[in-house]
Amino acid sequence: MAHTDPIADMLTRIRNSLKARENSVLVPYSKLKGELARILKEEGYIQSYKIVARENKSSDMIIDLKYGMKKERIINGLKRISKPGLRIYAGKDEIPVLLGGMGTVIVSTSQGIMTGKAAKKSGVGGEVICYIW
Amino acid sequence: MAHTDPIADMLTRIRNSLKARENSVLVPYSKLKGELARILKEEGYIQSYKIVARENKSSDMIIDLKYGMKKERIINGLKRISKPGLRIYAGKDEIPVLLGGMGTVIVSTSQGIMTGKAAKKSGVGGEVICYIW
Repeated sequence: MAHTDPIADMLTRIRNSLKARENSVLVPYSKLKGELARILKEEGYIQSYKIVARENKSSDMIIDLKYGMKKERIINGLKRISKPGLRIYAGKDEIPVLLGGMGTVIVSTSQGIMTGKAAKKSGVGGEVICYIW
Repeated sequence: MAHTDPIADMLTRIRNSLKARENSVLVPYSKLKGELARILKEEGYIQSYKIVARENKSSDMIIDLKYGMKKERIINGLKRISKPGLRIYAGKDEIPVLLGGMGTVIVSTSQGIMTGKAAKKSGVGGEVICYIW
């Protein structure tokens, strides 16, 4: 699975690490995954992320996870929506609202990767990458 | 388990990542684990390792794993020997030889963490941390 859908793999790694209350998680780096991490950070779901060069050409990304005061989870769920085998697109008026706005939709638009809210504001649709809540 | 025996946890992470043919693996950093990584590198079992600061006081370590030309494993096994609940020590004349010298014994001595061979050369015994082969 890791090799057929790198985004699903990233979400799985985060999910598993949160479950084990890990402080950080390693994800093989790609530009798209970096963009996803940027949004997770901007939306307050993770503490930070950094890209670490490997000896060969590829890089790793370390995501510092975030918990509440009592080590409770900030992210309750992550769900892959569009998949390599079944791409899901939403027009600018079709972007879903998650849990009445409590969750975050991540959309890949012609103007870059952004939240569903930002896509609506910009009046663009796109591929629905995943949900986070 | 991760919390009761950090070294066993590190070996498990390496084992699982090798199995999945991952290029690298993240391990929460400690001085002892850094020393272990140094020996793995010196003995040719891994490509490299680096320590990455986290936002809070603790750090992570990324280990770049090593495979052969056909992605075959270099490390066939890792076994924790001394454990928090049952410490195993070997005197200077008792240090085990693994697979006729093909494997590596890692020993924590008064002169630092070293291979069994190095301990023998230095004439010191110590706690038998793990086997690698």
